[in-house]
Amino acid sequence: MANSSIRSAGVVGGGLVGSAWAIVFARAGVLVRVFDASEDIRRSAPARIRASLEDMAKAGLVEGVDAICSRVTVVESLPAAVSDVDYVQESVFERVEEKRAVSEAIGTLIRDDAIVGSSSSGIPASAFTEHAPRRERFLIAHPVNPPHLVPLVELVPASWTDPAILPWLRAAMEALGQAPIVVKREIEGFILNRLQGALLREAWALFEEGYASAADIDLTVSHGLGLRWSFMGPFETIDLNAPGGVDDYARRLGPLYQSIAQSRSNPHPWSPELIERARLERRAALGQDELPERSAWRDRRLMALVAHRRSQPSG
Amino acid sequence: MANSSIRSAGVVGGGLVGSAWAIVFARAGVLVRVFDASEDIRRSAPARIRASLEDMAKAGLVEGVDAICSRVTVVESLPAAVSDVDYVQESVFERVEEKRAVSEAIGTLIRDDAIVGSSSSGIPASAFTEHAPRRERFLIAHPVNPPHLVPLVELVPASWTDPAILPWLRAAMEALGQAPIVVKREIEGFILNRLQGALLREAWALFEEGYASAADIDLTVSHGLGLRWSFMGPFETIDLNAPGGVDDYARRLGPLYQSIAQSRSNPHPWSPELIERARLERRAALGQDELPERSAWRDRRLMALVAHRRSQPSG
Repeated sequence: MANSSIRSAGVVGGGLVGSAWAIVFARAGVLVRVFDASEDIRRSAPARIRASLEDMAKAGLVEGVDAICSRVTVVESLPAAVSDVDYVQESVFERVEEKRAVSEAIGTLIRDDAIVGSSSSGIPASAFTEHAPRRERFLIAHPVNPPHLVPLVELVPASWTDPAILPWLRAAMEALGQAPIVVKREIEGFILNRLQGALLREAWALFEEGYASAADIDLTVSHGLGLRWSFMGPFETIDLNAPGGVDDYARRLGPLYQSIAQSRSNPHPWSPELIERARLERRAALGQDELPERSAWRDRRLMALVAHRRSQPSG
Repeated sequence: MANSSIRSAGVVGGGLVGSAWAIVFARAGVLVRVFDASEDIRRSAPARIRASLEDMAKAGLVEGVDAICSRVTVVESLPAAVSDVDYVQESVFERVEEKRAVSEAIGTLIRDDAIVGSSSSGIPASAFTEHAPRRERFLIAHPVNPPHLVPLVELVPASWTDPAILPWLRAAMEALGQAPIVVKREIEGFILNRLQGALLREAWALFEEGYASAADIDLTVSHGLGLRWSFMGPFETIDLNAPGGVDDYARRLGPLYQSIAQSRSNPHPWSPELIERARLERRAALGQDELPERSAWRDRRLMALVAHRRSQPSG
C-alpha cells in the first residue's frame, strides 16, 4: 500500500450511497466487493449501479460501462467483502448502534494494514469505533451524495486514528478522482454541513422576517453567489475581490460582516409555522408528485456540470 | 413604458461597474449613454467596454461586438446621460455624500416616469435619496460584479419608493437577461452579502479554531456545496434532499442546524492575527503578483460557466 493507491475495496451497505461508492472505485479500475445484510438490496444493487453508469456514459463522463460493471461483485457475506482488501467503505444506515455493530465485525476481519472509512454524515467515529478491534484503522470518509458526481470527501479521524492514515488516504482518494479534505479533529456537522447550515440559517431567517421569498433567496444563490462557488471556495473568492488580496478584503469588509453576524446572535429553531410557510411556497412552485422528476433533472444538471468542469483549465 | 422594457438608459459612473452595466443594456439592444465626472474614465470607457465584449465573443456569449458598441455613447455631461431616458443606473463611488449629491442632481433632470437604480452594495437608498427631487423614482439595483457575467440584481426600495416600480423593473431587468430579486424592505447587506457573510463567518471560525486549512474549506465549497448551488438555491436544494420535500428535511435536520447555530452565538471580529494567518496561507498558494492573472482566469471560468448554463434545460 506504499503507493497511496487502493487496489481492492470492500463496500458494506449497498444502498444509494454504497452503490455510488462502488462506481467510484470500479471506474478507477479498482476491484470492489459489495455486501449488504438485506438480500433485496444485494439483488437490486447491480442493476442500480449499471443504470447510474449508463446515465453517466450518456453525459460523456465514463466509457466502457460493461468493463466497469465487471469490476463490481456483490458478495453474500461480510467476510467475503472486507477480508483481504486494502480499503473498506462502510455505508450502513446512520444509526449509532448499527455503525458500532458493523464496525466491530469489520475490525475482526480486516488485514492489519487495511483502512476503514465510514460514510457517516453526522455521527463521529469516536461514537462507534471505540471498542472495535484495530480501531486505529477507522475514520470518517463522508461523501456528498452522490459521490460519483460530487467529488468532495471529508476525512475525519477519531483521537485514536493512526495519523499516518490521513495523508495516505487523501492521496489515494485523489487518485480515485475524488476531492478529499482533512478535518483535523471531530466537530458536529464536520465542515460541509456546518457551512451549509450557516447559509441555511441566514436564508431561513430572511424568509421568516419577510425580507424575500424563498424563490428569490434561491435565485440569489443560483444566479449570484453559486456561480463563483462552483469553481472557487469562499477564501479564494474574497482573495480575488480586493486589490490587495484576502487581508485587504478582511480589513475593508470585516466590520460589515461582524455587524451582520451580531444581528444573528440568538439562534432559534425553525418553528412548525415557519416550516409550513416554506412548504406552501415550495409546493406552489413544484408539486409533491413532481419531486422525483425534478431530482432526476438535478442529477442530469450535475452530470453536465461535471463534464463542463472537466473541459476547463484549472488555472 | 407600459411594456416593462427599457428602451433607453443612462449610466452615471463609468468605472468597472458602470462599464459592465453599459454592456448589459447595449447587448439587449438598448441605447445607452454613459457619463463619468472624470475625463480619464470617459476616455478609457469605450476601450474597456469593447475589450470585455471581445472576451465574451470568444466565449460564445455575444455576437456582433461592433453593433453592440455602436449602441453605447459616452457623453460629456450628466444631463446628456440622464435627461429623457427610461432608466438611469447610478454607479458612482460607494460613499454616501457622493451618492447623495449625484442623486439630487439626477432627480432634477429625469423625466417624471423615469426610474433610477443605484449599484450601491451596502448603503441603502434611504440614506441618500431622502432629499432628491422625484425621490419616489429611486431605489437600489445592486448587481454582482461583473453584472454582464453574473446576472443577479437586488432591487431594494426605500420606504418612499413607488411600489409600482418593483414589478415593472423586475420584468424589465429580466427582459435584459438579468436575474432580479426583490428585497421587500431595507436590511444591512441586502440578501446576497448576508448569505455570503453567514458562510464566511463559519469559514473563518473553522479556520481560526484549526479544524481545517483555508484551502480545504475552499475545496468543500468548490468541489461540494457549490456544484448544486450553481444551478439551484438552498431551499430547492433541501426540498430535493428529503423524500417528503422541504418540510420533511427541516423536521429531520432542523435540530442539527440549531445545535450548530448555537455553537456560533457570540460573533467576534476577525482579529489581525487571524487575518495574517489567512494571508500567509493564501500568499503561499498564490503570490501577490499572480492575483491579476488568477482574476482573469476566474472571469474566463465565469464566461465558460455562463455559456454552459445557457446550453442546459432549465427543467
